[in-house]
Amino acid sequence: MKTGFIGLGAMGAPMALNLKRAGVLVAVWNRTRERGDQFAADHDVPLAEDVADLARRCEVLVSCVSDDAALEEVVAQAVPGLQAGSVWVDTSTVSVATVRALADRLASRETAFLDAPVSGGVEGARKGSLVMMAGGDEPVLERVRPVLQVLARRIEFFGRVGSGQAAKAVNQLMAAGINQAVSEALAFGEALGLPMERVAALLAEGAAGSWMLQHRGASMVRGDYAPGFRLALHEKDLQLCRQLADEFQVHLPLVEMTLVHYRRLQQAGHGDEDISALIREKRKLFEPS
Amino acid sequence: MKTGFIGLGAMGAPMALNLKRAGVLVAVWNRTRERGDQFAADHDVPLAEDVADLARRCEVLVSCVSDDAALEEVVAQAVPGLQAGSVWVDTSTVSVATVRALADRLASRETAFLDAPVSGGVEGARKGSLVMMAGGDEPVLERVRPVLQVLARRIEFFGRVGSGQAAKAVNQLMAAGINQAVSEALAFGEALGLPMERVAALLAEGAAGSWMLQHRGASMVRGDYAPGFRLALHEKDLQLCRQLADEFQVHLPLVEMTLVHYRRLQQAGHGDEDISALIREKRKLFEPS
Repeated sequence: MKTGFIGLGAMGAPMALNLKRAGVLVAVWNRTRERGDQFAADHDVPLAEDVADLARRCEVLVSCVSDDAALEEVVAQAVPGLQAGSVWVDTSTVSVATVRALADRLASRETAFLDAPVSGGVEGARKGSLVMMAGGDEPVLERVRPVLQVLARRIEFFGRVGSGQAAKAVNQLMAAGINQAVSEALAFGEALGLPMERVAALLAEGAAGSWMLQHRGASMVRGDYAPGFRLALHEKDLQLCRQLADEFQVHLPLVEMTLVHYRRLQQAGHGDEDISALIREKRKLFEPS
Repeated sequence: MKTGFIGLGAMGAPMALNLKRAGVLVAVWNRTRERGDQFAADHDVPLAEDVADLARRCEVLVSCVSDDAALEEVVAQAVPGLQAGSVWVDTSTVSVATVRALADRLASRETAFLDAPVSGGVEGARKGSLVMMAGGDEPVLERVRPVLQVLARRIEFFGRVGSGQAAKAVNQLMAAGINQAVSEALAFGEALGLPMERVAALLAEGAAGSWMLQHRGASMVRGDYAPGFRLALHEKDLQLCRQLADEFQVHLPLVEMTLVHYRRLQQAGHGDEDISALIREKRKLFEPS
């Protein structure tokens, strides 16, 4: 299937490259022109004139952009070129409300929309081993699955448009809570004077174990917060959780607690560190005032 | 080494049986006489007259009792019988302050003390696959390691007396935080109308994954809270975390939050359920008021 890719950022560029290797990539587009030119030159891939031009040439459009506004902008620009029967797959993490509105807009142009946010980070994007959480029409997903399988080792369908974003929000809330758990416990152990690298390694094997403790425990104890998953990006995702919870008029305790901590860390210049830098805030609990 | 076992509860009984199978168990004792008689009859193991009698006959005493008061009581009763050069290994989860005081008391009777709380639950006790967190004198631990290896697949030494309990407290705090994370996220996903058994299974494989999600996610979604790890016992352990934090004049946010939830759940009659029953409290957030 003739596929176009929109958004050549840290995640998008390796995803587009995997589509090229699979022989389905027709052309790419990027909001910042220089980055598009560079990618086209480096990888011998056509750069579309504009998004409408890309849309005209493709049956499948895959987008990976930074936020709701960027996604709305590229969809608006694509509309004049959209081909009847085409499919738009957005892999960005944006709000449920935005993807529902865009799906309606695209439906009026006979273009189907799937929200398909991913997890697995830059490494997963590079290896084509992302996990994809999809919402939309299931038959449409099955139609484009051969393309998406180039990007993801696992693709799960969770229901109508927006269900992918909802599942991603659940994942990001869970990650925030686990970050709180690991950070608070390790800081507590440090204050107690325990040999924390060995304690963390032992605990990771038991019922209090987690991916996070296994993969970040030792670096946290050493004070190394190289990303990984950038704290500023997780903050953005937790804002989406808050928006969704607002519809129930609910405050999610772990989301609110983590947003307070992340805000403080960003103000102190730690927004580009890994989310495990949260332990900095927990250590402060034990500092003499 | 001639070993005596004190405390034939849900954890202690299978631990004692493993010591018997290994051929090192001389006799047992239990506070409730009937349970001691029953164990002795069922397994053809001598029941000691009293703790002092047990102490007189053994080089190693292993205890597994329910709380600080019970441990203080059996140590007091043992004192008249303690043999110079013997070793007391306590596998209970009790306070750091208590084990430090008891270690001093036993030292005056030329008996070494190791605090060696365990994790792995009843299943780990039965299989001899517990994880043991030890504090005390390292050469003493090495001396009795052949006995303890009958009980635990892994034995880690973390420092002076009390370090085992401190590490266990870190573990229990981490478990509380992860319970919060998994419960809040799953309840959120339910409110969003997602197919949560499949969402939980997917999330368990990624960076938000944990032992708890892997092993309790599906049962939580189904509303099944059979223990597992009893909520009332975790509540007791979190009180020990609070005591330790009090020494720093610190409130640990996840400990305080979880104690509030567990208190409410116990008042509602859920104290004997698995700790994953915490999701009951998170679901209430989304109930129409």
